Amino acid sequence: MASRTAPRIHLGPDENPLLAEGIRRGGGVLVPLAEAEAVVWAQGPETFPDTIPDAIRWVQLPFAGIEPWLAAGVVDSARTWTSAAGAYSGSVAEHSIMMLLAGVRSLREQLAATSWRKDEFDPRVGTVRGSTVAIVGCGGIGRALIPYLAASGARVLAVTRSGTPVPGADETLPADRLDEVWARADHFVVAAPATAATHNLIGRPELARMSRSSWIVNVARGTLIDTDALVDALRAGTIGGAALDVTDPEPLPDGHPLWTLPNALITPHVANPATGLPRALADHVAGNVARFAAGEQLAGVIDPVAGY
Amino acid sequence: MASRTAPRIHLGPDENPLLAEGIRRGGGVLVPLAEAEAVVWAQGPETFPDTIPDAIRWVQLPFAGIEPWLAAGVVDSARTWTSAAGAYSGSVAEHSIMMLLAGVRSLREQLAATSWRKDEFDPRVGTVRGSTVAIVGCGGIGRALIPYLAASGARVLAVTRSGTPVPGADETLPADRLDEVWARADHFVVAAPATAATHNLIGRPELARMSRSSWIVNVARGTLIDTDALVDALRAGTIGGAALDVTDPEPLPDGHPLWTLPNALITPHVANPATGLPRALADHVAGNVARFAAGEQLAGVIDPVAGY
Repeated sequence: MASRTAPRIHLGPDENPLLAEGIRRGGGVLVPLAEAEAVVWAQGPETFPDTIPDAIRWVQLPFAGIEPWLAAGVVDSARTWTSAAGAYSGSVAEHSIMMLLAGVRSLREQLAATSWRKDEFDPRVGTVRGSTVAIVGCGGIGRALIPYLAASGARVLAVTRSGTPVPGADETLPADRLDEVWARADHFVVAAPATAATHNLIGRPELARMSRSSWIVNVARGTLIDTDALVDALRAGTIGGAALDVTDPEPLPDGHPLWTLPNALITPHVANPATGLPRALADHVAGNVARFAAGEQLAGVIDPVAGY
Repeated sequence: MASRTAPRIHLGPDENPLLAEGIRRGGGVLVPLAEAEAVVWAQGPETFPDTIPDAIRWVQLPFAGIEPWLAAGVVDSARTWTSAAGAYSGSVAEHSIMMLLAGVRSLREQLAATSWRKDEFDPRVGTVRGSTVAIVGCGGIGRALIPYLAASGARVLAVTRSGTPVPGADETLPADRLDEVWARADHFVVAAPATAATHNLIGRPELARMSRSSWIVNVARGTLIDTDALVDALRAGTIGGAALDVTDPEPLPDGHPLWTLPNALITPHVANPATGLPRALADHVAGNVARFAAGEQLAGVIDPVAGY
């Protein structure tokens, strides 16, 4: 879908300055919807037009998680739709390695201390070095996480739908061999999309196969883990702990056991914080506009059948 | 100093099984002191023999920081002495990136929360992405830290004594240009040896040049930072914060302001935890015995004049 001239992009619902800059940086020109061949949308589906012109060949959505867009029935098969998947991968990967290390190295108890309890903490500080870390759902976030794990000398076991080898991973398994990883890896970073197939992907049987020192990091969606089963495993100490940026239910209600279990670390869905969001999205849009202009494959193309 | 036969190594003061295995793995044989050409010592200077045979050409000490050995006057110039510098670099680098991210991403407040305060925390979660990080004293720890910073897309400014370019750093400055970095970098990881030249390396003038969002991570020695000046800067909020695994005084006494300042994160000298120490030292010894056998340059050679 190469354009011989600068791509004509409509930016809606209003002219977000950073996104406008990103579109121009990618080589696009801003035009009204009726003259556009592509749309960049800066808000949720509730403000999206009921119908858009047939001439629109591509729509860029502003979020990585596109469940609300699918639920609203906006995404059709008449054109290419792209999410912001990948735009925020770097920030989420950074949060993931922090959460994994904070768990394995017992950081919370240390930061809560007000005296020098070295003898008590020292034997409880572990390391990711030499361990095997499974990345369950190794897309953009997982790929951005691999260099951190490589820096720690960890062995990376990637799980993807297809099982096509992920660059940098020591081994890649297809989703239908997922049941092998629970006993093979020491730690687990959940970075899979939320779909019917990934609902409660980690439940009692999966938790039962993990080791007593295993940490689970979830930076994807809370529903990928069976919360009740997780709380039981954390209480019983059959796993090392869970570091969760997403929860089910979310927001996690006051008084929920996950708030006070010593081996549960919670951050309130901030892996991709608002501070970095506009800049990261603008960069993503600039890249996709340039690809659109060059007729290249866009980043973050949505597969409405797979649901992400 | 190649040995045509297996190097004859004395292991003292007693036969530590992991270190014995490391010596054998490196190709050495264990012999009494009188028959040895090299010594691997598993304890501090207080148990070290007053005199060792002239035939001893190399002594491997068990710690990375060798101040007590220099103070005891044990290290002479009649032979090569090596410290465990480098053996623990990986673990300390892992701790460093965790501490830097925990600071920049406001982790402590989040882990202390017992309700979903997303709107409050979200604007306070920063990222290392796109920032400039100075590694002040870029030896083994700094070199092990660079891949993590590269994964975060940070620009790395390395400072070394000589200024010889450090692989992976975007720029390397010699120690005599150190005063440039305080205003040029966003964050600082202190990983320099404790010497007379590095005492209170970061004091009031250096802190005054940093930005209000700058974090300082210290995983080296507490004396590299002027604690009183640091406390004043943290109280005034003229820097973002300090994440310290080492302090001055150390242990940090109960009631010290660093325990309760919200922008000070303290871990009690556990970056290189006891859990990983014997294995890491054994690996280091195995490598050095193999190098000794091959007549290669040993890792961690001590320069008694420089003091590390």
